[in-house]
Amino acid sequence: MISVQWRAGTLELLDQRLLPGEEVTLACKTVAAVEDAIKTLAVRGAPAIGIAAAFGMLLEVDSGLPLAKARRQLLDQGQRLRAARPTAVNLAWAIDQMCRLLDEDYPNTSALMARLEAQAMTIRDEDAAACRRIGDHGLPLVTRYPRVLTHCNAGALAVSEYGTALAPIYRAHEQGIPVTVLVDETRPLLQGARLTAYELMKAGVPLTVITDNMAAHMMSQSNVDMVLVGSDRVAANGDVANKIGTLNLAILCQYFDIPFYVACPMSTIDVATPTGVSIEIESRDPREVTHIAGQQMTPASVCAANPAFDVTPAALVSGIITEQGVFAPPFNFSESDVG
Amino acid sequence: MISVQWRAGTLELLDQRLLPGEEVTLACKTVAAVEDAIKTLAVRGAPAIGIAAAFGMLLEVDSGLPLAKARRQLLDQGQRLRAARPTAVNLAWAIDQMCRLLDEDYPNTSALMARLEAQAMTIRDEDAAACRRIGDHGLPLVTRYPRVLTHCNAGALAVSEYGTALAPIYRAHEQGIPVTVLVDETRPLLQGARLTAYELMKAGVPLTVITDNMAAHMMSQSNVDMVLVGSDRVAANGDVANKIGTLNLAILCQYFDIPFYVACPMSTIDVATPTGVSIEIESRDPREVTHIAGQQMTPASVCAANPAFDVTPAALVSGIITEQGVFAPPFNFSESDVG
Repeated sequence: MISVQWRAGTLELLDQRLLPGEEVTLACKTVAAVEDAIKTLAVRGAPAIGIAAAFGMLLEVDSGLPLAKARRQLLDQGQRLRAARPTAVNLAWAIDQMCRLLDEDYPNTSALMARLEAQAMTIRDEDAAACRRIGDHGLPLVTRYPRVLTHCNAGALAVSEYGTALAPIYRAHEQGIPVTVLVDETRPLLQGARLTAYELMKAGVPLTVITDNMAAHMMSQSNVDMVLVGSDRVAANGDVANKIGTLNLAILCQYFDIPFYVACPMSTIDVATPTGVSIEIESRDPREVTHIAGQQMTPASVCAANPAFDVTPAALVSGIITEQGVFAPPFNFSESDVG
Repeated sequence: MISVQWRAGTLELLDQRLLPGEEVTLACKTVAAVEDAIKTLAVRGAPAIGIAAAFGMLLEVDSGLPLAKARRQLLDQGQRLRAARPTAVNLAWAIDQMCRLLDEDYPNTSALMARLEAQAMTIRDEDAAACRRIGDHGLPLVTRYPRVLTHCNAGALAVSEYGTALAPIYRAHEQGIPVTVLVDETRPLLQGARLTAYELMKAGVPLTVITDNMAAHMMSQSNVDMVLVGSDRVAANGDVANKIGTLNLAILCQYFDIPFYVACPMSTIDVATPTGVSIEIESRDPREVTHIAGQQMTPASVCAANPAFDVTPAALVSGIITEQGVFAPPFNFSESDVG
């Protein structure tokens, strides 16, 4: 399953707003289209929006432009995409990777564009490779704790090929380990019920969808061996920003003495953010809460809150599974770790 | 707001499946109609289904019947309604109250029917009185902890007049205490987003709807002073069965050191159930999880779980607010408490 694809001047996105009902490819030819796709979650998942933005900033640049003009346009486009969503660090990270190359010497704009395109492909390919390694490093954990509860979607749709949190699950399933997944539906946008369920079914991994508020009951009935989620940003001290509801699960895990693991590429670890307190939490349109499938569920004009993420304190995290291995607490990430 | 009304041979129910979009009264003239209304949640809330069943068992009985035949029919109808939902004890309690009168002496069937009708009215009226007293006993708590988070609907729609968990909130609001309510939407059937929001808006109580998985985040931001919920059954040791997701909240309260209170009439306390372990948890149709507003949100034929309730251990309960006062832990209810 490929959620982000680059085809000579067009960014193709599998429209995740329409899944699982319809599989529609969105062909973005403008920066505005990519920006809109990121804001409205046609493309979502921390690594995937980083990759989409890296390619997206290349759109609409005429290789006949003078170098200085092209540089300015690319920088502008990068900054615009960087601002599309605030919480996931991979978006800013990918744009920074791209912008760093703008100041190098190039004979002409074509050469600059070729270099940037190659860099975007590298980001994508390294991400896919990181996911495979996350799968390998997480495999012993899933083998030991085969009944996994996950939240939101941190699978192939959010990243590439294996995903992050789902990577160890896919690797275990490939090896015949009887892994089963409890999938939190993940209100308000139901990324679990729609996307994770879709991915796991396609891969043949046994799953059961639950509403988010059933997790404690499932744990109390001894139906959960571990919780495994992705992340949108990990602070230097190991605090984890992820989809709203993650903090809920981490607290439940502490109460029931169930391991709580986070899987993410090193690019999700933001050493410039000392603790979770300084992570900006995106607040989205309250209609995502009050309306479902276009229909208002609440009384008209009711007030609703819609924080898209929450921050889980490092003290509740059993380990962080990355392409470099599994980090155990206490966490203390520095520039030398994330390179 | 009156959710259950008895009018000479017809049981009128405010159809809670259609709220808040439509206010439709369902006129039940048969036991099958009442049974269906209870099973499909047209009428819901532990006390309300008890009252509906008490009146419902009187339907279709011809007062011209010989006494013995009428008794048999009433007993059959009572047993049938008693079995409509398994978890809430008030349903069984109300039917037992009614059936106990069947064996007394009556000159004829009309007299028997009059006695039973009077008993159903007594159950209803005592319930309303209990709710007012729950409001009085809970008022000091809500005054002290004015930012309340509640789950599901334990208001006027679930009971009479004031409801249970909402009774102290209504009383505080009447007295000008600046109470505000965070309303868990309460998946799968959204009783919070649909019913509690509807009730509170009608009463002018300020509220904000959240998805169930936002509770931990709201608590971490110090937006919650207390959690206050109703109950479907309280065991003798104080274990509390209530809408799925309640256990989640109780564990979060322990973590964040926030008081967790339960409000219910004494009829909800089931001394015949020693602990929560022996409470039967109703498992409902998985389509309530996979479909919203008639639309399937998940991939077709996905597996979903749908336990309707969970059990919160007494150790997590700060107090139980009843018409007799606020019980503090450790709980040890006996026949003499519930009379």
